[in-house]
Amino acid sequence: MGGAGQQHPSLITLLTDFGSQDGYVGVMKGVILGINPQVTLVDLSHDLPPQDVIAAALVLQAAQPYFPPETIHLAVVDPGVGTARRALALRVRDQFWVGPDNGLFHLVLEGQRGFQAVCLENSTYFLPQVSATFHGRDVFAPVAAHLSTGVSLSDFGPPLTDPVHLNLPVPAISSRLIQGQVIHVDHFGNLISNIRFAELETWRQGRPLEVRVGGHHSARLVRTYGQGSPGELIALEGSHGYLEIACAQANAALVLVGGRHLPIAIMA
Amino acid sequence: MGGAGQQHPSLITLLTDFGSQDGYVGVMKGVILGINPQVTLVDLSHDLPPQDVIAAALVLQAAQPYFPPETIHLAVVDPGVGTARRALALRVRDQFWVGPDNGLFHLVLEGQRGFQAVCLENSTYFLPQVSATFHGRDVFAPVAAHLSTGVSLSDFGPPLTDPVHLNLPVPAISSRLIQGQVIHVDHFGNLISNIRFAELETWRQGRPLEVRVGGHHSARLVRTYGQGSPGELIALEGSHGYLEIACAQANAALVLVGGRHLPIAIMA
Amino acid sequence: MGGAGQQHPSLITLLTDFGSQDGYVGVMKGVILGINPQVTLVDLSHDLPPQDVIAAALVLQAAQPYFPPETIHLAVVDPGVGTARRALALRVRDQFWVGPDNGLFHLVLEGQRGFQAVCLENSTYFLPQVSATFHGRDVFAPVAAHLSTGVSLSDFGPPLTDPVHLNLPVPAISSRLIQGQVIHVDHFGNLISNIRFAELETWRQGRPLEVRVGGHHSARLVRTYGQGSPGELIALEGSHGYLEIACAQANAALVLVGGRHLPIAIMA
Repeated sequence: MGGAGQQHPSLITLLTDFGSQDGYVGVMKGVILGINPQVTLVDLSHDLPPQDVIAAALVLQAAQPYFPPETIHLAVVDPGVGTARRALALRVRDQFWVGPDNGLFHLVLEGQRGFQAVCLENSTYFLPQVSATFHGRDVFAPVAAHLSTGVSLSDFGPPLTDPVHLNLPVPAISSRLIQGQVIHVDHFGNLISNIRFAELETWRQGRPLEVRVGGHHSARLVRTYGQGSPGELIALEGSHGYLEIACAQANAALVLVGGRHLPIAIMA
Repeated sequence: MGGAGQQHPSLITLLTDFGSQDGYVGVMKGVILGINPQVTLVDLSHDLPPQDVIAAALVLQAAQPYFPPETIHLAVVDPGVGTARRALALRVRDQFWVGPDNGLFHLVLEGQRGFQAVCLENSTYFLPQVSATFHGRDVFAPVAAHLSTGVSLSDFGPPLTDPVHLNLPVPAISSRLIQGQVIHVDHFGNLISNIRFAELETWRQGRPLEVRVGGHHSARLVRTYGQGSPGELIALEGSHGYLEIACAQANAALVLVGGRHLPIAIMA
Repeated sequence: MGGAGQQHPSLITLLTDFGSQDGYVGVMKGVILGINPQVTLVDLSHDLPPQDVIAAALVLQAAQPYFPPETIHLAVVDPGVGTARRALALRVRDQFWVGPDNGLFHLVLEGQRGFQAVCLENSTYFLPQVSATFHGRDVFAPVAAHLSTGVSLSDFGPPLTDPVHLNLPVPAISSRLIQGQVIHVDHFGNLISNIRFAELETWRQGRPLEVRVGGHHSARLVRTYGQGSPGELIALEGSHGYLEIACAQANAALVLVGGRHLPIAIMA
C-alpha cells in the first residue's frame, strides 16, 4: 500500500454491540467515509448481546476465512471504554483487526505464531476531540479508515506483544468423556458449544457417541439440520466449526429452557 | 456482459432469515466481495420470521419493480438446506434471482411466460468446501457473485423448467363475497392479506364494500393511513399491492390479537 | 456539482422507522441506485420507535458533525404520509436533508441563521406513480438520488421558509435547580435527557451537583461509564451532547422501571 494521502478501494467490516436503533454505527461510517470515501463497508453484526466479548470473538473467528486479503475488521465491544484498557491494531496473515484490547481478537490469534500488533497511541489518527464514552467513533473508526488509506501499522503506536486473552471455558477431555458447555446462542436458538468439531472427530476415532445436554437431554449426532425429525434434539458441526445443539424445526434454547453455560457431555 | 474473469459494477440484493446477530450475512458478503470487489450490496431483509418462505416471497415480489436492470437478488430462506432440495438461478425479464428452489420465487414468476432457470450443479462456482448447513455462504453467495462478473446462467448447471410452487392460500371469490386471509404481518403490525387490491377494484365495480376482519371487526376502506381516526381499523391498498388492514396510530396485530391466518371477508 | 444527467460519487444516509423486516428500506435503495448507481449508502437507523420524530431528530443532530460535506441525509419518519403535510429538501452549511416537514430537522436547524429549504413539488423528480402510503420510496428516495446527481435544490420546488418545529420539552432552569426529563432511551437502556451538557457546565460554575432521577433516585456525576461501580446510577455527558443517566454494567431503563418522560432534577 502507498502513503497515507492516497485512497485505495478497500474493505472494512464493522462489528459492535451498539444495536441498530441509535445511529451509533452510522456515525462511525460517516467518520470512515470522510477519511476514505472509496472504502467498502460490510456489517458483521451490531446486535451482539451488550458487552459480550465472547460472542464477538466467535463472529470474528468465523468471518476471517471468508474475507479477501487486506480486509480490515473493526470491532468495538468495549465494556472498558474510558478506562485504562489498551486499544490495538493487529495484522494476522493478510488481514487486519482494530479495536479494544480485551480479548476480542483472541480466537483470531489462537494458534498463530506470527502476528504484528500495535498499541493505538498516535492521536494524529484519532478525531481531534476524543470523548470518554465513544471510542468507536473517535478512535477506532478513524484508525481503521487511515489504515485503509495505506498508513502502516507501526505509525499508529508502539508494538504490543501481549494482547489480552479471552476467558473462554475450555472443555475437559478424558479418554471416554468430553465435558463442555454452551458458549453462545445464535439467532435460531441453536446452542454453540466450546467443543471444536474437528477435535471431537479426532478424539472419537470412529467410536459411537452419546451427546447429553443440560444433564438429562440426549441429542442425536447428525450431519444436517434436515436430518432431525420435528422437535428432535440434534448435535452437528455448526458453521462456526464447533459442536452445535439444535432442535429440528424449533428453537433449541426455548425447548431446553436454557442457553449459555448449559453443560454438554459427550460419552464414547 | 463479458467473460467470467471481468469485474462489472453490479448490484446484488440479499434476503435471508439469518437475523443480524451472528455475522452470517456479513460472511456471505465477504465471499461475494472476494469474487467481485466492485459489486454494490443492498440488504432487502434479514429479519424475516425464521423459515417463512411466504414472507420472503412477498418481499421479493414487492422489491422487483424498483430495482434496476441486471440486479441479482440473492435469497436464502432455506428450511431444506442439506437435503435433496434443488438450488437455482433464474432470469425473469431483466433481473436475476438465486436461491433454494422451494417457492421463494413463485410470486416473481407468477404470470410470467418467459423465464430462464438453471439448477445450480456446477461446483466450479461454489466455495471449495460446501458445508451441510450453510449453503448461503458456500453455494448461493459465490454463484451470485460469479453471475455478477458475467458468467452466463447456463454455465451454472442444466435447465430447470419446473420451479417449486409456493403453497399460498388463494381467496375464494363469488359475486358478492371475497373470503381471504392475512398472509403476513409487517413491522408496524399492519396485516397484509392475500387479496390483490387491483383485483378487488375490478370485482367491486364501484359498489360500496364492507370489510370484516377476524369474523366480527369492521374496517373502513380508505386511501391513506392518515385518513383513519386514532384507533380506527382501516383497510387500504398497501405498498405490496395487496389489501392491508391497519389500525390508525396503533398496531393492528396487537389490537386484533391476531395475525397470520386471520380471516378477511369483503362483502359488496 | 454538474447537471442532472451526470453521476457523482456521493453519500446518502437513510433514517427511517420502517424496521428491517419488510424490505421497505431495501426498496428505497433500489430506487436510489437506479437513478445514481455510483452513490454510497449508509444506514443511520431503521429501528427507531415507530413514528418517534424526536428520536429521529436526535439521531440526525448527533450524526451531522461526523459526515463529510455534500452528504445527503434522507429521513422518513412520517406519521402524516398521505395527508397535506409538506415535503422538503434542505441545505444547512455543507450538507443536505430530505424528508417530511414535521420537525425531523428541527435540531439540525437549531441555532442556524442560514439555511436553504424547498418544498418538494416538482413531480419530475418523483417516481411516475406516487402511492398514498409510501412516500419514502416514491418521493423522498428519488429526490435524494437526483440531488446526489447534481440537481440543484431550487429545481425541486418553491422556497420553504418556515419548517415545522419539533415539540421538544425544554428544561426549566433557575439559579439552583434545573428540571428536565428523559426524551430518549437508547439501545443500552441509557436515558438521554433534554439537558444539554455544555449548558449544564456553564450554569454550574464549578458548584457541586446533585442529580435526581424519577423523583427519588440519585445519580453520581462521572466522566465515563467505567467510573460507576456495578449497579450504580451515574450521570454523564452522552455522545449526543446531552446529560445521560446510565446504570453501570446494567440497563438503567430496566433498573428505574421507566424511560421517556421520567423527570430529572439537578440541584446545585
